[in-house]
Amino acid sequence: MAGTDSTRRPAKATAREAVDGAPAIILVHPQLGENIGMAARSMLNCGLTDLRLVKPRHGWPNDKAIKPSSGADIVLENARVFETTSEAVADLQLAIAATARPRGMAKEMMTPRRAAVEMRVFAAKGSRCGVVFGPEAKGLNNDDVALCDATLSVPLNPAFCSLNLAQAVLLVGYEWFLAGDQAPDSALPISKHTRPANKEELLGLFEHLERELDACGFLRVREKRPIMIRNLRAIFHRARLTEQEVRTLRGVIAGLSSKPRS
Amino acid sequence: MAGTDSTRRPAKATAREAVDGAPAIILVHPQLGENIGMAARSMLNCGLTDLRLVKPRHGWPNDKAIKPSSGADIVLENARVFETTSEAVADLQLAIAATARPRGMAKEMMTPRRAAVEMRVFAAKGSRCGVVFGPEAKGLNNDDVALCDATLSVPLNPAFCSLNLAQAVLLVGYEWFLAGDQAPDSALPISKHTRPANKEELLGLFEHLERELDACGFLRVREKRPIMIRNLRAIFHRARLTEQEVRTLRGVIAGLSSKPRS
Repeated sequence: MAGTDSTRRPAKATAREAVDGAPAIILVHPQLGENIGMAARSMLNCGLTDLRLVKPRHGWPNDKAIKPSSGADIVLENARVFETTSEAVADLQLAIAATARPRGMAKEMMTPRRAAVEMRVFAAKGSRCGVVFGPEAKGLNNDDVALCDATLSVPLNPAFCSLNLAQAVLLVGYEWFLAGDQAPDSALPISKHTRPANKEELLGLFEHLERELDACGFLRVREKRPIMIRNLRAIFHRARLTEQEVRTLRGVIAGLSSKPRS
Repeated sequence: MAGTDSTRRPAKATAREAVDGAPAIILVHPQLGENIGMAARSMLNCGLTDLRLVKPRHGWPNDKAIKPSSGADIVLENARVFETTSEAVADLQLAIAATARPRGMAKEMMTPRRAAVEMRVFAAKGSRCGVVFGPEAKGLNNDDVALCDATLSVPLNPAFCSLNLAQAVLLVGYEWFLAGDQAPDSALPISKHTRPANKEELLGLFEHLERELDACGFLRVREKRPIMIRNLRAIFHRARLTEQEVRTLRGVIAGLSSKPRS
């Protein structure tokens, strides 16, 4: 089709990439099957195949997705359905929330280009990444954004920046694809004996901390509790903890909260 | 919508750009009004407003373009119709043909990113540029490609590279927009009521934590103490804490270590 290059290079490397660390695309409560199909097409255009659906409005599978996918069967057939966003991101070590507006959370905001570099760095070390997109009309809710390590916004004409879902997926995938040949411009050195923590481990840490903070009365002001918890979690998200660091921090919490005072 | 940034910065500079040298988008024999509408939306997303149609199959104006344009009225209303491609590109100083396959012509082939840089250079000197797209099914014919200075192909998964017209226009426009966008590619939003912590505050936090960890016996293994402290400090360094977060964390430490256990 117009503006694409079918002869550019052999498919092999790309198929490998799709298996070896290409990000998952998580669509939360997608409303229209057509949009899921178009998003699947955009994904495969960019060598992405791991599609995850959180409670799609009209269930799954959905015949309306087939034609708009233009033959991206492999993506639709392997799509997995989850009940909650936290289950859908549980195995990921880096989750990025696509969001049009700032959420008043202290999370890093990235362009798709920057996110692609971050994800390539994680993928190169065998970690799993994903980008989370909200429903067509409303976008992600704050709880879903809070599950993620960072947010992603596409720089576009601020006077007219509404993209449809498949186009947002395309731009994220396109930047991922293009970033494939480039060396990353920053990296976090991680010991060989550990790996980035996954969301389950991180959530275990958060719950441990909050349990102890409840017990000691730190979170006693009921109306402030949600925002304090969100802000605390944001700190540890931003730190990109390793699995080992999560264990260390849990030791710290246990130590602090159980100590016999003199 | 998902993944766009409505607050990025004021529209002024972008509106100016649209007037002052943003490329024209030339659609040759577009078949469906819906695709023209979606292409118009993609254009305005990227600050482009100069749409030119060469003999659209169903004439012009076409009501079917309106809804898919999602409010990009300014683009549809100002669209101009031409009888031939050569008339549509007559005033341009740089015309680039979007094409999926090589044409056996000795013309430079560019990615959208490279084309964006080329067009920025021309635009900066007051020259007019444009990108020419063929009909949905067949793409441009060789005579139309021959009218252009260079060709453009989107690097995508070679095993599945078919983009629809609006998506091809979006990727070209997106690269144009980014090539002129000076905004940083990542940022950490910080509340107006705080600021990044300074090293004195951070050190105060570290010492507070370590004092309590000494008291509770967490750091009792003497030879491990320095490395544990270094690792804990690294976590909080990486989190780029604000002054407010330092105070919150000190409250957490004080709360955890002083709580009356039941």
